[in-house]
Amino acid sequence: MTFLFNSDAARGAVFAKVFASELPDLPFSMDPATVDPDAVRYLISWTIPDSIARYHNLEIVFSIGAGVDQFTMAALPPSVKVVRMVEDSIIRMMQEYVTLAVLTLHRQMPAYRAQQAARVWRALPQPQAAQRRVGVLGLGVVGQAVLERLKPFGFPLSAWSRSPRQLDGVTCHHGADGLDAMLADTDILIVLLPLTPDTRGILDARLLAKLPRGAGLVHTGRGPQLDHAALLDALDGGQLSGAVVDVTDPEPLPADHPFWTHPSIVLTPHIGSVAEPDSAARVVIANLRRHFAGQDPVGLVDRQRGY
Amino acid sequence: MTFLFNSDAARGAVFAKVFASELPDLPFSMDPATVDPDAVRYLISWTIPDSIARYHNLEIVFSIGAGVDQFTMAALPPSVKVVRMVEDSIIRMMQEYVTLAVLTLHRQMPAYRAQQAARVWRALPQPQAAQRRVGVLGLGVVGQAVLERLKPFGFPLSAWSRSPRQLDGVTCHHGADGLDAMLADTDILIVLLPLTPDTRGILDARLLAKLPRGAGLVHTGRGPQLDHAALLDALDGGQLSGAVVDVTDPEPLPADHPFWTHPSIVLTPHIGSVAEPDSAARVVIANLRRHFAGQDPVGLVDRQRGY
Repeated sequence: MTFLFNSDAARGAVFAKVFASELPDLPFSMDPATVDPDAVRYLISWTIPDSIARYHNLEIVFSIGAGVDQFTMAALPPSVKVVRMVEDSIIRMMQEYVTLAVLTLHRQMPAYRAQQAARVWRALPQPQAAQRRVGVLGLGVVGQAVLERLKPFGFPLSAWSRSPRQLDGVTCHHGADGLDAMLADTDILIVLLPLTPDTRGILDARLLAKLPRGAGLVHTGRGPQLDHAALLDALDGGQLSGAVVDVTDPEPLPADHPFWTHPSIVLTPHIGSVAEPDSAARVVIANLRRHFAGQDPVGLVDRQRGY
Repeated sequence: MTFLFNSDAARGAVFAKVFASELPDLPFSMDPATVDPDAVRYLISWTIPDSIARYHNLEIVFSIGAGVDQFTMAALPPSVKVVRMVEDSIIRMMQEYVTLAVLTLHRQMPAYRAQQAARVWRALPQPQAAQRRVGVLGLGVVGQAVLERLKPFGFPLSAWSRSPRQLDGVTCHHGADGLDAMLADTDILIVLLPLTPDTRGILDARLLAKLPRGAGLVHTGRGPQLDHAALLDALDGGQLSGAVVDVTDPEPLPADHPFWTHPSIVLTPHIGSVAEPDSAARVVIANLRRHFAGQDPVGLVDRQRGY
């Protein structure tokens, strides 16, 4: 019975240390070349490795990140459990990043960035937070945590999810009709959706056109959700006034892509959040203990739904 | 008995409307050329106008901004009360701006801005908030409100003030020794001091050298508090890693000043906070009512201390 770690070595060294101290009886390997494939019961990885078919006794695949959209589920026998990373530092970092991004758009930092480059000292008219409606697409653990952090600033808040939800101080919408209603009332739209067949390409020209003219976009979902050309058209035509983009398709973004130089786009290289390795290792160990005790792991993925 | 408004006309129109509805019996003038100087009992202005000696019956000068450092106090008879603007939107906007600035430095946005300009897609190692100590110089109403907004992010917080203070969840320092102790433990320093003879030039090479190597600076005090050359030296020598600067000396900053183009400086044109005019007018009216009732106005300045 072995735990196989299949990711970068620096992170692996932290995992190895925590496993040695917390689960000393569970063999831990970082080397697919030397591990006995029949011994591998647990695997942590960012993608499903090509070697997956060798692990006949695999019980759980852990994602090293918050999402599992990068997993080719079809390669896994139905009996294998798939577990997302539900870890505090992922949530805290996303709270930081989204708050930073919302304030960046609210306080017109793309315009001030351009003014700094042009050596222009000019204060722009500034709406109050109470006049800036902020909406979140995707109301999972991270979406809720982000809304909690935005609340004290006084933005009117709304959120959209597939199924009905209730959240204190947040106008909650759901379903297809709810999406249109929410978009019409959103000045800054935050995308925190998982990548699924339903959300692929969801941020297209039609959706962006439903926002009030001059709205802003914070894209912290997944690259393939956004029609990149539609965003550029919306910005150039004035339908959107600015965007903070942390995920693209592909990643890395090619050097000749227009996002790099667009004056209204703040672009970051998928840094919204990453799991802190020590804490991530402890989360995985806690989930292994739940599994040993016959309980479902926290973050268990519904393989039909895809998240 | 007249209230004289001496500032921009757009703001004045809002004041005129609120005064007409709330204090209809108090004559309101926006025109120093036609007002009867002997009638002027109350004046609101950004600076002390040259005409000040004409207003023999002046009782109160209100600042239209949060500070009064721009007032030439010597031009005012000792009996005249000087009142700062203590208004909610000033506080709320400064909470936004400082949170934005702290997250900008914490999440290394100056480096990502440079990477975007150079079309480089590379995630940088990212410290957790718990490892990023944030300290505030100046613990007035605004400083306390800013700390309140930073608390949920999990930064270890400290603050420094002239006289001893106690604040929940914040390590409080005071006096000259306290300043050194606080600086040694501060990774991101926020300046929210009023401009006084004591604070003019306070952000010099000596002070910046007391911060841990690689610290960041958020300058939201007043321009003349910062030795601009010392900031450039500290950034270029690696003592500081980045700065968000909203106030300079002079303002506007001349077009050939090195701050405009420095890759580690995010520069904004003194937009941290401005009073929202409707709300500012109501604050002034509430203070006039206190004055009529024989009470001190809120925001009364100690003219010896200068704030």
